[in-house]
Amino acid sequence: MYSSNLISVKDALQIIGNVEIILNKEHIPLEEANTRVLAEKIEVLIDVPPFDRSAMDGYAVIADDTSDASPSNPLYLEVIDEIGAGSVSKHALSHGQSIRIATGAPMPAQSNAVVMEEDTEQIDNKIKITKSVAFNRDVALKGEDLKKGEIILKEGQILGPHHLSVIASSGYGKVKVYKKPEIGVIITGNELVEPTTHLKPGKIVNSNKFALKGLVEESFAVSHIKHCGDDFNVMVSELHDYIEKCDVVITTGGTAISKGDVVVNATSELGEVLFHGVAIKPGKPVGFGVIHNKPVFMLSGYPVAAAVQFDIFARNYILKMQNIQKEFDLMKCTAGDDIRSAKGKCNIIRAKLEGNVVYPIKTKAGINKSIIMSNCYIFADEDTGNIKKGENCSVLKYSSLKVCK
Amino acid sequence: MYSSNLISVKDALQIIGNVEIILNKEHIPLEEANTRVLAEKIEVLIDVPPFDRSAMDGYAVIADDTSDASPSNPLYLEVIDEIGAGSVSKHALSHGQSIRIATGAPMPAQSNAVVMEEDTEQIDNKIKITKSVAFNRDVALKGEDLKKGEIILKEGQILGPHHLSVIASSGYGKVKVYKKPEIGVIITGNELVEPTTHLKPGKIVNSNKFALKGLVEESFAVSHIKHCGDDFNVMVSELHDYIEKCDVVITTGGTAISKGDVVVNATSELGEVLFHGVAIKPGKPVGFGVIHNKPVFMLSGYPVAAAVQFDIFARNYILKMQNIQKEFDLMKCTAGDDIRSAKGKCNIIRAKLEGNVVYPIKTKAGINKSIIMSNCYIFADEDTGNIKKGENCSVLKYSSLKVCK
Repeated sequence: MYSSNLISVKDALQIIGNVEIILNKEHIPLEEANTRVLAEKIEVLIDVPPFDRSAMDGYAVIADDTSDASPSNPLYLEVIDEIGAGSVSKHALSHGQSIRIATGAPMPAQSNAVVMEEDTEQIDNKIKITKSVAFNRDVALKGEDLKKGEIILKEGQILGPHHLSVIASSGYGKVKVYKKPEIGVIITGNELVEPTTHLKPGKIVNSNKFALKGLVEESFAVSHIKHCGDDFNVMVSELHDYIEKCDVVITTGGTAISKGDVVVNATSELGEVLFHGVAIKPGKPVGFGVIHNKPVFMLSGYPVAAAVQFDIFARNYILKMQNIQKEFDLMKCTAGDDIRSAKGKCNIIRAKLEGNVVYPIKTKAGINKSIIMSNCYIFADEDTGNIKKGENCSVLKYSSLKVCK
Repeated sequence: MYSSNLISVKDALQIIGNVEIILNKEHIPLEEANTRVLAEKIEVLIDVPPFDRSAMDGYAVIADDTSDASPSNPLYLEVIDEIGAGSVSKHALSHGQSIRIATGAPMPAQSNAVVMEEDTEQIDNKIKITKSVAFNRDVALKGEDLKKGEIILKEGQILGPHHLSVIASSGYGKVKVYKKPEIGVIITGNELVEPTTHLKPGKIVNSNKFALKGLVEESFAVSHIKHCGDDFNVMVSELHDYIEKCDVVITTGGTAISKGDVVVNATSELGEVLFHGVAIKPGKPVGFGVIHNKPVFMLSGYPVAAAVQFDIFARNYILKMQNIQKEFDLMKCTAGDDIRSAKGKCNIIRAKLEGNVVYPIKTKAGINKSIIMSNCYIFADEDTGNIKKGENCSVLKYSSLKVCK
């Protein structure tokens, strides 16, 4: 058994930050790489376009042939072939000749400009041209989009649709990305049951399961969730199982500071509890430990406290495992009402931000719906104390916690 | 065959908007509902908590018993039972008695307050209390979080982790959400092949496939993608197949205005082309039609044009099919350079926004990497014309196009 002392949020984050993060990588088909984080630089493997090609539907010509063309001096060129996109002409142009060409088709040998279809008139097997075209007019040159050898994307890039498109063009069908961390979530509590309208006495719905699954997904990780009763031996066994299978374990419940409680004791049994109890409100009984070099975040059973603890301690760690660096993005706002905040601890107060004015939601710690009624935390640290209406305060918007990929 | 005339972006959006949207709904397990859009209101089915419960680890007492307790006048109460979370005590309290109680456990009959464990001293089968507790102190009252019959969420809510938690607590294991639209994507072009470094002459990589798949996913829809050569009969058959299976069809390529081209002709064959050709740059040959009341967005083969066409014409329609209302969120910015913009058409110029200053990316239409080098469009409508460095202009940030769920 360990003993617990409240430490500061700063110290807690420092301890968590010291647990080495292993960035696992995987090679996946490009089709599946949308929203993933690139784990290699992308060097272009082929010139794009891979050949000089027509940028228009029209006629490939030798530009010099057209230099004197005008309405009063029309030029007539013989049409010797037709090239669709994806095809190649076997013919090379000689002076006085042209080849009908589709957008995207490769320029035939000796041609060096395209006359747009709209600027021509077809007469039998000839076209009539009444204005000159410049060298390379409406020709997309080999390599003008992507040059072989060019570094087009760096490691760490979050991949969106157009990144995938450019990577494909560069010649890659697979891509190396950071692996999604596997998060084992153990929800503890004898009182918890699946959603029902027929609760047995003393039972409540296991709502944390749904919140934690969603929070893990929101962090782009994969969740493995189970429910576990308040039994030390069972907890040790479940924890051992998830530590083997997963990269991180998150628990809820079983962290009461006064008694030690099942989860913290089980972590202590299998590994080391690095802290238990932080000067934060809500969420004081949060614990953190390491088993076989893998982090264990021990959150409260109270949904509101668990949400705060996830946001402050676990979320950015999970993102960092995917090489997504995220810091708290605090804003300065004006208090729309008096805010109670105790000195000596970090007060994370659910609140509603309207414009630049923030209103604390005045409820008890057990009111879970306050999370969905609020859109931010007021972040009042150890030195802040009570805040009066009209004074400045620090705000952390819920939307700022998330990465929008 | 149809004939085509350029219409304005506004008129095109109006025509698209007039195609009735059918909002399909489905009942899904709550576990799978994160980021989905609620298609019903949520009425709370059970009081939460479902019983008066202890908010602390401590002792359930009768508050009146403690009214005179003080350090000089300690009160001793007999401990007659112990209740863990999930359990119920068979005992009712009489004066002079207490029951040890865990956080979350139901208050025993006749008790009406909790003395925190830290404020007690256990001596044999009694506890010593040296201060009074008020009525309902550290008791979470039945229904104080959620009241049976209360409407806690409205239709249209995008569900996040904490919404799921509250819905679960309200008694629901399944939830009705808007169905993800099924989008059939047909990428046309004989020249297109899968990513490779060994391209045959005239061939290029099918990069649109990856972009469109990602764009559809980014719109929370499901993509079904196939490649189709430039053949009218094959196109008719593929289009017919996807119109049967999917809610919307998006095509790329085969929309050349000068010739009609395969895709537009095939749509015309099976249904009706409502427009073909819009006064927009890039993206002029965009088409839109309806087959069996289902919309067909016909985008260009050029990736940059297809991206612009998707963003301007298709994206918000797909979101609306899920009851997500999204409008273009134009910002007023300062031009960091001269911007060429032709009057009489809507110019959508890839650009880089730095602070409030926007720099156009000066490249040809075929430079696909310009999309990933830019972070916004400069939106210069029909009346704008050229913009001088230092003048105001309208900007549409790429990030503003997306919904962050």
